[in-house]
Order: sequence, then structure tokens, then C-alpha cells
Amino acid sequence: MKPSPFLSEVYNKSSFPLIGHGPRNVGVLKEALDQYEGEQDSDIYGTGTVIEQFQLDVAQLLGKPAAVFFPSGTMAQQIALRIWSDAAGSKKVAYHPLCHLEIHEQDGMKELHHLEPILLADKTRPVRLADVQGMPEGVACLLLELPQREIGGQLPPYEELEAIAAYCRSNSIKLHLDGARLFEILPYYGKTAEEVCSLFDSVYISFYKGLGGIAGAMLAGEYDMTEQAKIWKRRHGGDLISLYPYILSADYYMKLRLPHMERYYKEAIELAALYNSCHAITTVPEVPVSNMFHVHIAGKKEAVEPMFIAVSQETGVGFTHIVREKEDSNCYFEVSIGERYAAVPQDRMHEAFRKLDEQLRSLN
Amino acid sequence: MKPSPFLSEVYNKSSFPLIGHGPRNVGVLKEALDQYEGEQDSDIYGTGTVIEQFQLDVAQLLGKPAAVFFPSGTMAQQIALRIWSDAAGSKKVAYHPLCHLEIHEQDGMKELHHLEPILLADKTRPVRLADVQGMPEGVACLLLELPQREIGGQLPPYEELEAIAAYCRSNSIKLHLDGARLFEILPYYGKTAEEVCSLFDSVYISFYKGLGGIAGAMLAGEYDMTEQAKIWKRRHGGDLISLYPYILSADYYMKLRLPHMERYYKEAIELAALYNSCHAITTVPEVPVSNMFHVHIAGKKEAVEPMFIAVSQETGVGFTHIVREKEDSNCYFEVSIGERYAAVPQDRMHEAFRKLDEQLRSLN
Repeated sequence: MKPSPFLSEVYNKSSFPLIGHGPRNVGVLKEALDQYEGEQDSDIYGTGTVIEQFQLDVAQLLGKPAAVFFPSGTMAQQIALRIWSDAAGSKKVAYHPLCHLEIHEQDGMKELHHLEPILLADKTRPVRLADVQGMPEGVACLLLELPQREIGGQLPPYEELEAIAAYCRSNSIKLHLDGARLFEILPYYGKTAEEVCSLFDSVYISFYKGLGGIAGAMLAGEYDMTEQAKIWKRRHGGDLISLYPYILSADYYMKLRLPHMERYYKEAIELAALYNSCHAITTVPEVPVSNMFHVHIAGKKEAVEPMFIAVSQETGVGFTHIVREKEDSNCYFEVSIGERYAAVPQDRMHEAFRKLDEQLRSLN
Repeated sequence: MKPSPFLSEVYNKSSFPLIGHGPRNVGVLKEALDQYEGEQDSDIYGTGTVIEQFQLDVAQLLGKPAAVFFPSGTMAQQIALRIWSDAAGSKKVAYHPLCHLEIHEQDGMKELHHLEPILLADKTRPVRLADVQGMPEGVACLLLELPQREIGGQLPPYEELEAIAAYCRSNSIKLHLDGARLFEILPYYGKTAEEVCSLFDSVYISFYKGLGGIAGAMLAGEYDMTEQAKIWKRRHGGDLISLYPYILSADYYMKLRLPHMERYYKEAIELAALYNSCHAITTVPEVPVSNMFHVHIAGKKEAVEPMFIAVSQETGVGFTHIVREKEDSNCYFEVSIGERYAAVPQDRMHEAFRKLDEQLRSLN
């Protein structure tokens, strides 16, 4: 018996899935390409209108002089840290223990660039000013991920972010933003992208999280930094002859989804409250500060999964495609709100959460 | 006055361009995607039917146990050499002085992997058996590019290739194929892809040269090597959440173009003969051994470009979009045959070459 794939199947077939924009299928690209003429020229190795104009547009949106499109954030961020490391003459870079570079990239930063991470804060909370003030000497760059995804999308208070930026500036430490979900936090902070980015020397954003594109990333900053980044992009094998499949879809979905970030954020607050009303469930954060949060369940994965399956099959509401085990033998899953949530009928959703609560009461 | 862009413009607007498959525009991707249903699932970080099946298909075509799809050949080849270097415990890798890794990748291989190239042969001819026999001790891997693109697409005799492979095997030197244009040389060698690849420990092929896809590459070899390559692909930032825009187009154009490689080869021989019939022109090779060759003109770029422009404007035949200066102050350009050549009316083409010959007679 393989319960996990089954949950995934039930979720994918559910009439009212709660998470995301929709299935990741070829239709997503087709819809984007339908907006463009077949005669439009490809980019060629980082040159051409399609890539150069998009880079200018996003640089402007982020309030930076220049930007470079990358096939992936993994590539963009390693390169940003490498550039700041070379500039400072130090291999030390500081970030959170659950930073993407630390846990999802097969140590590319260390194996390819020989950078040495200084881990700040513990695994349960975001980096705070005191962590930064306590860093050892010689840190070339501090990377902040806003929101910190692996802990449910938590954020420091904005004033603390400003204080961290001021500390870095006065100590000649470059500040890099892992902004994979930058647009998703703007409604909570009540700031523009440009305002948040003004605190950072370099900014990475992703086009396939809250924006729902196919893949791709942008690295923005001063012109000198982005020109160096282009050289490293070629070295990494990311300077493809044609990146337009990602660029055109990034452009299309960014324009489509940016206006809805405030709605996604409010819907996340609404949905988290529904989860928190259930027995044995707490969300992290308790009140979301972006379109995402984590759902923690005081029960074993083996006991919990069949409950989600049963309620989904009964009500048509899809909660999650995967439940993950935690070290304490309880379990959790991630929720991020996209276009789908608004299409779920409220009465059906409330019925589903009543039934879920009933199921969960039988735990322990 | 900027003559070079003008030549490019004249070429792009010519009624009968002689080179390539067609313009690199969004229509190329649209045509490929029209073959697939919107409901088809994306690949997800290197998994899923769309990528796994294509990897199996190409591995079988190349006669290798396994294959990994990469966004670029730059990434695939650095990684292949790194794996062989680690296995041998030596940083030394050998290749031609005009190898892609040496001249087109901003020294990525050296900057990221600290590999040390041993340059074989001189810049005018392919690597021969004697070059290989003369290599210093401790070379981990020899890379052979077939055909050697930067010298017009030259090849060693097949028997010599077999002898090089035998030498490498008996000296525990891994042999890697830069097969960016592998399918283009099979008609000349009279071999299958599997036969040629059987001489090599690892093989890279490209999907956007003779095959005419959007971008993308495959690295094939033993299962243990390709599994290591997947880890390095993640480290390089090439393990994108979705590579299907490149995979689907690679699959589509490969099936469309593979059956025509023999025709492209014969057309290259025909076209090279036409160039060689002109005053002041020689092609390299004189008789092509693939779908490509270089056209060398005994004259300065500034004198030659207006002649090509004049003949194109008069006859509608497009020769090249760019003429490159050589160190000896003469000039050259590259020709590679694709779908377009067969659409050029023979009488129009012969008229164009008569007029080109007349123009060139005024050189010197």
C-alpha cells in the first residue's frame, strides 16, 4: 500500500483544490504563447529585444539599474554570492540554516564556488538583527529570504529589516535578497517592490512561484554586478541560445498575477483560520504574512493521510497532494494560495473543514 | 555606415536564403507545441514521463544505457569532464585548441571545476592519433568534437577514430564525444549513431544545430555516470522545475529532421562546389563531410561584403548574414545546410553564383 501517491492522485482529481494556480502542464505555456506572434524573434545568447526589454522592465519594477534573466534561481543566487565574495575577497556568506542554497542545491555553492556559509538563527525562526550583529568578521554577503519558505513563510518586522540593512551598509557587508516570493509579501509590509529592494544590493526573484510561470529567475542590481553575472551565467551553462519560452511566459503571468497578490494574501489568512479551527492543527505562521503557510498536524502521517483522503473524496475539496513527516513523528504540509482558491465554493469548503475536524478528533 | 548589420538585414529579407532551417522565432516553438495536448503534464525537477521517456529514447538511439537532458551543452560537457576528472583523480583533460570549452564558455570549466586543458593538434586540423599518443601522462579524459566546427567541420578518417578509441581504452583515458553535430556526420562515415557512440564513454548531443530545436542537450553514457551528472546539473542550476519547452521541441524536430541528414550532406557538397567555382573562394573542407563548411574569401571584409549584398539584392539569393575577419586580413563565413536549401530554385542559385564570381573577379 502506497498512501502518499494516492493522496496526490485524490488531490489532482479533486473538484476544488485549495492550492496554487492550476496543474503544471503544457497548457500553461500554450496560453502564454497565444499572446505572441510566431514572427517574434528569439533572443540569441542573452541579446535581442525579447530578453533585453524584459530585463529593463523588471529592473524598473524592482528599482534597480539593471537585471539579468536566468533559467533558474539556483544559478542566479550562487552567482550573486560569488560576485560579492570575489569583491570582498572573502569566501564567507551568511544565511538561514534552511536557505535554498544550503538544503536544495546539492551544495553547488560549495562545490562550484567554494563559498563558506555562516548559518544564522535556528531552524524555527527568521534571521533577526541580533543574529546579524553577532556574525563573525569578514562576511562578504548576507542573504535574506523573504518570506522564509521552509518555516511557513515567516517575516521579520519591516523596521528590523531596515535596521539589518543599515547594519550591513555600515559594516560593508553586501545584502542579497532571496525574493523568490517577493511580490507575495508586499501586501503585508504595505510596501512597493522598489521600496523593499532599496534595502538590498542584489535581488533575485522567481517567475514560477506565486507568479505561476514555467521557470526562470531574474537577478537585479547595479550594472557592474549584472555584467559580471552575465559572464558567470555563461560559465554555468545558463546563457542559452533561446530563453524566450521562459521569458514570454514570465512576462505574461507576471502581468496577469501581480494585481492579485493582495487577494492571495487575504485568502491565506482566511484559509489558515479554517485550519486552525480544526482539532490537532496549528498553522505556521498562525496568521499568514504572505500567500503561504504551513499546516502542522499533531498526528502520524499514516493516520492523517487517510483522513484527508476521505474528506476530499466525500466533499471534492482538495487539501494537499503530499503530507510530510517531521522529526517529532508528527506531520505537516505547505499551502500557497493562487488562482484556484477563489473558485472553491464557500459552503463546500466549510463543510469539508467540519468533516476534517471530526476526522481529526479521532487522533490519539 | 555599418555594413555588417546591413548584410544581416539583406540576408534575413532574401527570398532564397541558402543556410539553416528558417528564422529562429516564436513560431518554431508554436509549431512543436501544436503536436501536444495542453493536458500533458510538465516534467518536475528532472522527473516525470516527458523527460524520462525522452531520455530513454535518446539513450537507445545512441546505444547507451542512460541519458540526462540538459538545458545546454556548456553545462553537460563541463559536467562530463568533471566526472571523469574526479574518477581519475586528475584535473587534466585533453581537447582541440578550438574546442567549445576553450573558446566559448568564459573559462567555466577552469573557473568552476578547476580542470586543466591539454591542447592537442594545431588550429587548422582535427586531432589525430599521433596527437593522442603524444599526450602527457595522467590525462583523465580526451574530448573529441565531431565534426570540428571551428575549422569548417573537419573529421578524422573513421579508422583513425577507432584507433584513438582503442588507445584511450588501453591507457584508461575516458573518451568523450562533443557530438553537437553527431547526426550530421553519419552519412559521410556511413555509420549509425550507435556505432559511432560505441567508441566513446560519454556522448553529448545538441538539439538546436542540425536538428533545429529551440535549445537543450543530452548527455549519455553508463547509468552511474548519468546519475552523477544529475547531481552536478542541480549544482549548476540546470535542474529546472520545467524543461519541457526544450524537450518537446527537441523530440519533435529530431523526428522531423533526422531522416534528412543525408540530403543536407549531399546539398553541402553541391553548394561547396558552387562556392569553389568562384574566383578568390575556397571552402574548408573542399568537399564537405557533413552538412557544414566554411567559405574563405581572399579579400578584405570591407570589399567582400558589398559584393554579397549586391548579388543578394539582384537575385534574391541569401548567402550569409555575417562575414568574419581573419587574422590574415582575409575573411570567411560558415555555411550549414538545413531545410531552406532545397527550396532555392536551381536556376536562380546558379545565376547568383555567376554574378558572385563576376563581382569577386574585381578583387585585388
